[in-house]
Amino acid sequence: MNKSGGTLILNTPPSIAGYASVVGKKEGEGPLAPYFDIACSDTTFGEKSWEKAESRMQKDAVNKALDKAGLSPSNIDYIFAGDLLNQCIGSSFGLRDLEIPFVGLFGACSTMTETLCIGSVFIESGAAQHCVCVTSSHFCSAERQFRFPLEYGGQRAPTSQWTVTGSGSVVLSASGNGPYINAVSIGKIQDLGITDMNNMGAAMAPAAASTLSQFFKDTGTQPSQFDAIITGDLGQVGSDLLIQLMANEGYDIGNNHNDCGLMIFDRKQSDVNAGGSGCGCSASVLCSYLLRKIMDRQYNNVLFMATGALMSPTSSQQGESIPGIAHLVQIKNDLTGGII
Amino acid sequence: MNKSGGTLILNTPPSIAGYASVVGKKEGEGPLAPYFDIACSDTTFGEKSWEKAESRMQKDAVNKALDKAGLSPSNIDYIFAGDLLNQCIGSSFGLRDLEIPFVGLFGACSTMTETLCIGSVFIESGAAQHCVCVTSSHFCSAERQFRFPLEYGGQRAPTSQWTVTGSGSVVLSASGNGPYINAVSIGKIQDLGITDMNNMGAAMAPAAASTLSQFFKDTGTQPSQFDAIITGDLGQVGSDLLIQLMANEGYDIGNNHNDCGLMIFDRKQSDVNAGGSGCGCSASVLCSYLLRKIMDRQYNNVLFMATGALMSPTSSQQGESIPGIAHLVQIKNDLTGGII
Repeated sequence: MNKSGGTLILNTPPSIAGYASVVGKKEGEGPLAPYFDIACSDTTFGEKSWEKAESRMQKDAVNKALDKAGLSPSNIDYIFAGDLLNQCIGSSFGLRDLEIPFVGLFGACSTMTETLCIGSVFIESGAAQHCVCVTSSHFCSAERQFRFPLEYGGQRAPTSQWTVTGSGSVVLSASGNGPYINAVSIGKIQDLGITDMNNMGAAMAPAAASTLSQFFKDTGTQPSQFDAIITGDLGQVGSDLLIQLMANEGYDIGNNHNDCGLMIFDRKQSDVNAGGSGCGCSASVLCSYLLRKIMDRQYNNVLFMATGALMSPTSSQQGESIPGIAHLVQIKNDLTGGII
Repeated sequence: MNKSGGTLILNTPPSIAGYASVVGKKEGEGPLAPYFDIACSDTTFGEKSWEKAESRMQKDAVNKALDKAGLSPSNIDYIFAGDLLNQCIGSSFGLRDLEIPFVGLFGACSTMTETLCIGSVFIESGAAQHCVCVTSSHFCSAERQFRFPLEYGGQRAPTSQWTVTGSGSVVLSASGNGPYINAVSIGKIQDLGITDMNNMGAAMAPAAASTLSQFFKDTGTQPSQFDAIITGDLGQVGSDLLIQLMANEGYDIGNNHNDCGLMIFDRKQSDVNAGGSGCGCSASVLCSYLLRKIMDRQYNNVLFMATGALMSPTSSQQGESIPGIAHLVQIKNDLTGGII
């Protein structure tokens, strides 16, 4: 392991042996429709509650990713999982039957890259030959937990984001032909005092800027050296802020930045305001469109950074601001022993 | 790293460089009173809400452990943290000012050993020289989230447990004179169909038995070869079940088993029914009495295993059973290159 500042450059970069995405109806009708493994037109996925539907998505995403990797649960050393539901029940109920040693993680919408960072370190250490990373979110289970039951028909602010119904799962292996997780950066909590629960993008942008500029400093690289810098899920408000914050630090990401929250929906066609959000947003975009483009070598060197808002309804009701966090992984097709 | 089944025997066993515990009034009047670093007679710890009090406990526990280790936050590579509150706000708000790369974990009451397992693998991999592990729980914030607001004065079942107001923090370092985390076992989710939210001990006991018997099989050891086998927090009901389940597997742990939920309160004096529970129970017992006994060499080879119930009020209201999980760490005073 080569540690440079806050960035770990891996000696044993895990190979992505399989990946899969499961999404809901709205996502399945969006611009990334051709890339998802499973899109279900029923928001309950045939289950009796939206929470059970979310668990079902995780289970299906994991099983599909394992199928594509040619592996079974008994081959997997550890599963790293998380979601947005209270006590992370999307993960624990979705994965309880797999009999895989289970590590629950919580990083709000940053959880997908958190799972990839921890999984990569486990493989680097020799603790795991194969591990699975998975997260999910569900619009209906999130709405009633964080805002109002859907039946209330509450008005949504222009800065608000639409929680994605989706799950994404990645199988990491100690050996394989790539693409590889080449480097990981675990972020620090940033809190600039934003208190608007309907403007998560603004709350998360400083954390995204902190982790991304730290990565460039740690590695002595510039944004233009990467084929794509994909954040998730800042939405339009947060993305604009990130570009500006990075410019203030001397980094121009305007040409190769995109955000999972802007990619998964057509904002003109669907009423999602500032874009998509949720643990399942970055997970399902990574495990569909993004990894497809990497596998097809349209992108060969990508920075992927999920962002999270570490609040709860209780903390906001108590007048607290919204701390943000962002974790980054670098995904490369070819191993060169360095960042570029 | 020497991997034997599900158990990782570490080549670079992290040394416990510092530890500290912070507890509330009831805990500070219990049998472990002489061992806690801070016991506060005010349940709010001077803050404006119980949730903020819980965050304050984590912050104080971390700062005290760092002081005792002679380290400052800038020396720490990663902090691994979790709690029981929705979206883990005890951790994120408590630790946001520290500017340490932050990994949020959720394993319900098993989280303290989850943090120690992940932190140990990070040190083993070379990713970290120093890291901090911390968890917390607060009786008042837990009661109103999981059961009823305290003002309701609801009756408590005999099998119910009393959530500990407390936090414990450990500083792990790549070098030092011990005690050492010698081995770690990350558990699998076990769900035998228990649905009684007032009998968490019974729901967690099968997970505890699974991880503990797996460890003995992986390492070819017997319970009598360890000075103490400390679970947390099974309480009386779960402890009795664990002893019986282990006996069914051919392991007699009756002579050297104890449970953090039974150690922290005098059940005759205080109205805690089956014993203590909560993320802060095992954390505060580890970071007070247990590590003191190890430092004083009364115990030289200890298995410490926190147990968690991976449910939420929503999952129970929807009729779900309660999945359990248990993660184990072995703490040794002397490095012998093996388990014994």
